[in-house]
Amino acid sequence: MEISNQFIYGRNPVEELLTRTPEQVDKVYVKKGVHKNTIGPILDLCSRNRIPVTDVPGSKLHELVGSVNDQGIVASISRATYQEFEEWMEQVQPDKHTAVLLLDEIEDPHNFGAILRTAAAAGMSAVIVPKHRQAPVNATVFKTSAGTAGIIPIVRAVNLNQAILTLKENSFWIAGLSMESDSTIWDQKYDVPMAFVVGNEGRGMRKKTGEHCDFLLSIPMFNGVESLNASVSASLVCYEWRRQQLKAGK
Amino acid sequence: MEISNQFIYGRNPVEELLTRTPEQVDKVYVKKGVHKNTIGPILDLCSRNRIPVTDVPGSKLHELVGSVNDQGIVASISRATYQEFEEWMEQVQPDKHTAVLLLDEIEDPHNFGAILRTAAAAGMSAVIVPKHRQAPVNATVFKTSAGTAGIIPIVRAVNLNQAILTLKENSFWIAGLSMESDSTIWDQKYDVPMAFVVGNEGRGMRKKTGEHCDFLLSIPMFNGVESLNASVSASLVCYEWRRQQLKAGK
Repeated sequence: MEISNQFIYGRNPVEELLTRTPEQVDKVYVKKGVHKNTIGPILDLCSRNRIPVTDVPGSKLHELVGSVNDQGIVASISRATYQEFEEWMEQVQPDKHTAVLLLDEIEDPHNFGAILRTAAAAGMSAVIVPKHRQAPVNATVFKTSAGTAGIIPIVRAVNLNQAILTLKENSFWIAGLSMESDSTIWDQKYDVPMAFVVGNEGRGMRKKTGEHCDFLLSIPMFNGVESLNASVSASLVCYEWRRQQLKAGK
Repeated sequence: MEISNQFIYGRNPVEELLTRTPEQVDKVYVKKGVHKNTIGPILDLCSRNRIPVTDVPGSKLHELVGSVNDQGIVASISRATYQEFEEWMEQVQPDKHTAVLLLDEIEDPHNFGAILRTAAAAGMSAVIVPKHRQAPVNATVFKTSAGTAGIIPIVRAVNLNQAILTLKENSFWIAGLSMESDSTIWDQKYDVPMAFVVGNEGRGMRKKTGEHCDFLLSIPMFNGVESLNASVSASLVCYEWRRQQLKAGK
């Protein structure tokens, strides 16, 4: 998947897009000379959602959207869209070779992008994220994912703990990464549908989330190192799961 | 390990430091009002080595180095220093639980920092890098390594291929990551001293380097993903080695 070149133009459409799904917007182009006070709410939304705004000549907008009444403003949107958890859950038919990754409030877009890339590469079925307090799928995420964001569904759950309970009802087993566990990622056999939970960069998995896990798994560390980068931890668990699938002939 | 607070002050010492070991310099502080033309060569060296320069009031320099004749210029240096390959090789007594990581021109300091962190955590004995065309151990590397850069030796080799031959003479086996290999990182048993080679982010391992490897190993990828981040690849191979060590009771 490439970053797409889809564009939305005109003041009202762009403002609406920024209000509803700012996480889809990569960038906003403003024609040089457009009075900033006529697009105040748009600039405000961009700033709040950390979306870059670029001043360009009118000819650049023309290149992007052709000869339309763009009112001097164009937004470029990314193609990866979220799927809602309930909708995704209805379609999934989990078997012993199914696994998903749950991210418990990953805040760094570089980590998020790297995780999307590795999860897709390892053959996970989806990456599930909480609707709030999660880095949005923005241009940085796309870039870090090397264009792989969206290859597997990015699923959004209003409440991650509720999603875990629903996954359990649908025969998934929940394994959380926790440095305090005596059991390692290599001790467990992944021969059932699996959901792996990776916690936040700084504070790890939330306590409540940990309590919902069927088991907790650690990654052994040496030389006094006390933690790994969240995307490295996620990669190790995704690929340990993959190693076991291949060993089981899948 | 913490980033240390060691400082060098004065025009000549700072210029000398920047000339000899620019990779040790995190940052240069210049007192506000110092005429730029009096420190031209220093600014030049900073720019060439991408070392940040900050204008600060004289009181800030005083805080850093105390009441000395600092001539309005202070450089902060990092504690991690390179070890030369020959020197390191003399001290090593490789056994079947020894492994090192060789980086073939990793250019991104974020990747380099992440790799140093994971290599230390996995219990590798050293990270070997080519003397030229390798991201220096600068402040970004330190930060990304979460302060772990330097926990295990960062070893510098003038010629990576020559270093590989020397490693072989010292009973190491050389395994290169290559996406084209039919053999995966899980197919090989690591019960001898190992040296794992991870290639450059964009172009992978150099052809010549690949020819020096005893075997090439791939990481299986799914969903049409064609490559992994260099730090993810490095993590997977370091930790597969670690998994096997633990299994063997180490």
